[in-house]
Amino acid sequence: MSVPATSDAATIAAAVSEGRASARETVASTLDRIARIDGRVGAFTDVLSERALARAEALDAAIARGEAVGPLAGVPFAVKNLIDIAGLPTRAGSKINRDHPPASRDGTVVRRLEAAGAILVGALNMGEYAYDFTGENVHDGDAHNPHALDHMTGGSSGGSGAAVAAGLVPLTLGSDTNGSIRVPAAFCGCFGMKPTYGRISRAGSFPFVGSLDHLGPMARSVTDLALAYDAMQGPDPEDPVATTRAPEPAAPGLESGIGNLRIAVAGGYFARGGDPEAFSAVARVADALGASGTVELPEAHRARAAAYLITAAEGATLHLDRLRTRPRDFDPAVRDRLIAGAMIPAPFVERAQRFRRWYRDAVLKLFDGIDVILAPATPCRAPKGGQTHFVLDGVTLPVRANIGLFTQPISFIGLPVVAVPVRLDAGLPLGVQVIAAPWREDLALRVARQLERDGICTAPVAEIA
Amino acid sequence: MSVPATSDAATIAAAVSEGRASARETVASTLDRIARIDGRVGAFTDVLSERALARAEALDAAIARGEAVGPLAGVPFAVKNLIDIAGLPTRAGSKINRDHPPASRDGTVVRRLEAAGAILVGALNMGEYAYDFTGENVHDGDAHNPHALDHMTGGSSGGSGAAVAAGLVPLTLGSDTNGSIRVPAAFCGCFGMKPTYGRISRAGSFPFVGSLDHLGPMARSVTDLALAYDAMQGPDPEDPVATTRAPEPAAPGLESGIGNLRIAVAGGYFARGGDPEAFSAVARVADALGASGTVELPEAHRARAAAYLITAAEGATLHLDRLRTRPRDFDPAVRDRLIAGAMIPAPFVERAQRFRRWYRDAVLKLFDGIDVILAPATPCRAPKGGQTHFVLDGVTLPVRANIGLFTQPISFIGLPVVAVPVRLDAGLPLGVQVIAAPWREDLALRVARQLERDGICTAPVAEIA
Repeated sequence: MSVPATSDAATIAAAVSEGRASARETVASTLDRIARIDGRVGAFTDVLSERALARAEALDAAIARGEAVGPLAGVPFAVKNLIDIAGLPTRAGSKINRDHPPASRDGTVVRRLEAAGAILVGALNMGEYAYDFTGENVHDGDAHNPHALDHMTGGSSGGSGAAVAAGLVPLTLGSDTNGSIRVPAAFCGCFGMKPTYGRISRAGSFPFVGSLDHLGPMARSVTDLALAYDAMQGPDPEDPVATTRAPEPAAPGLESGIGNLRIAVAGGYFARGGDPEAFSAVARVADALGASGTVELPEAHRARAAAYLITAAEGATLHLDRLRTRPRDFDPAVRDRLIAGAMIPAPFVERAQRFRRWYRDAVLKLFDGIDVILAPATPCRAPKGGQTHFVLDGVTLPVRANIGLFTQPISFIGLPVVAVPVRLDAGLPLGVQVIAAPWREDLALRVARQLERDGICTAPVAEIA
Repeated sequence: MSVPATSDAATIAAAVSEGRASARETVASTLDRIARIDGRVGAFTDVLSERALARAEALDAAIARGEAVGPLAGVPFAVKNLIDIAGLPTRAGSKINRDHPPASRDGTVVRRLEAAGAILVGALNMGEYAYDFTGENVHDGDAHNPHALDHMTGGSSGGSGAAVAAGLVPLTLGSDTNGSIRVPAAFCGCFGMKPTYGRISRAGSFPFVGSLDHLGPMARSVTDLALAYDAMQGPDPEDPVATTRAPEPAAPGLESGIGNLRIAVAGGYFARGGDPEAFSAVARVADALGASGTVELPEAHRARAAAYLITAAEGATLHLDRLRTRPRDFDPAVRDRLIAGAMIPAPFVERAQRFRRWYRDAVLKLFDGIDVILAPATPCRAPKGGQTHFVLDGVTLPVRANIGLFTQPISFIGLPVVAVPVRLDAGLPLGVQVIAAPWREDLALRVARQLERDGICTAPVAEIA
């Protein structure tokens, strides 16, 4: 009694909760698929077979007793390895953190998904300490793009994007500080959500930049994204910045369409500095939605620069002791950026924070006249693995530092975004950011669902060569 | 019809409101005394004769019509020249700010004191941009200690301390970022209050370090201090960090004594590193209050270092553009400290801010068992004017950077303090900090009043040689 391992979460949950499939068989076939395929993808760093099978059996027993199970009953999922899993040290992509004691319990988001019936099957590969946009990791090996294994997944939630795109699990969690969910969603051609800052608890996860860190889901359907989001969102006394807002479930409103939503394309900064395809992907989405107007986010280039400065300086603050005591145990590409961050003069960072308040107020005003803004997720398709430079708009730039140039000005002020995948041709996918005002995840999800229903944005399982 | 120009505020207000003195004559005799004496003291940078006399006449007319006047009726006061006065550029002790346009209206504190009947007579000398503890100013000339004109007033509110001690006005306002009210109160032998951070609005004043700046009163009696504090305290929508707490008037409870207040002397860091006299002054106050216990503020030396770092970096942030465009128009002693601040790495400052939260929590816990803490205000009596180094506990140190070593760890977390003057002998006075928990200015004022009533702390007008 099982459904195919590549089924989406809603399908699995329906089958399991209605008794048409067992959770145990679903998990077993998932574990089997991971064992067969992940060697080529490199998405998983830990597979928790025993834990997952035990949990599945307990769920099947509960269903047999007629107990109510949650909306994600039997759904296998996996999490970026910066989220605590009881019994494992939370490595956050690093070598150094492996010396930490094992986590004593699961992070809030894992507990909430499991309370909704989902079943954790493993931990996922990521860039060291989340300071990359590539999905490459010198300690665990790189994650590979399931749509072309010699290309990057994007990062830092590279394993999260790859696991979903490869059909290993229908649902993963990632983290997004400057684009680390949206970038791998775009490169791997799946859906990803970065919620409003503070909406989803980060308790029990290893941080990067406290004022920019978000956790969020990745999936192959918008419904799955919404189900996971609803299960995780809401106050958590253990996360000091988590909202005190009551959850406002998004899944029930998902099918209500885009009605008379006011949708505009981000112009100016967001309409240059990338490959033409990146803007073609935005245009295709805008056309499908009937969005003709543009809107300019004021001083977006400064927002990106300020996000960059704050990230480098706060990241360095977090890692200062490790930089002093264990410099050789870092990925050099991460270490050297952190050392540079450690030397940024404080007045520069303070000015960046002041600008941030100005920019937030200026952008929020735009939402008086607009409900949703569209922008590219990345300036290009996934580069080749190991590629260190690319040419954007005629300028040669380092890859690692520049993949996030369209995501950084959005996360900088905590706006909710659903990244939707666009397939312009038979080549690698691209991504578009569907951006809403704070706390209006529901609008971004409704737009994404409309695009999915109309066939503009789909996330098929990659055929692994 | 007047009272002596050297009367205290409560005496003047009683005489004026009861018709025993006219506000006009009071102001006129004040202006006369300033004209005769301030040439030697250097407390005033602006005297507002016309404005003050006009206001006094209006007040007298109101009294003649039987209208109610406030608790500070007819009381002349003056303010540190970083507080806005309509029609004057707010110079903040600098040369550069003189090019600013004149303030369009008075600062909140001036408006509130005048609403209570007080009459502004002038602006007071201060160290450039409040970055000194000396009361010396290269542009306006130094303020001189009224008790020994060849000695410092302390700063940066040097004019505020000198004007009160010289009997030029009974009431002045200063600002205190790291000790700039408490230090001149100690050196000039008067009372000074630094309220809880956020209690008194700073709207309409030139800032230094946003998270450390406080405004507060200086006077020759505790009653005057409390009357001024009550008139100024409370919410102000124009100061974004001003409390939303309703005012809790302190003056009415002033005579209720110290009852069974639990009073302790700060030990450890606060009991070493200064001249023996500084600790003798604390001991005299403690004896008079029957306080025998000591309490240790944990990691106070780190609190001072952290306050120092944050001040230098935030001060540099504020002045960065001026440092770039007009370096030669600064006092070199101020400029060079700001330039050093501009180069402090951001992670150091971020760590100082994190430590600050830890320290605040640790110190607040002490107030579970204690109501009031006593500590020295300065490590020594007022140095000579122009003195650049002193010897503290056998170590030669720069004066400007070290006068505030006992005040910095207290203002760092915004605790309310009343600085009380102590005269151990015929020499210059010393000061003691009476420190309370946040929002408990009333307790510090009651202790100060008890000390004043018992003759332990008095603030006689200096006899100017």
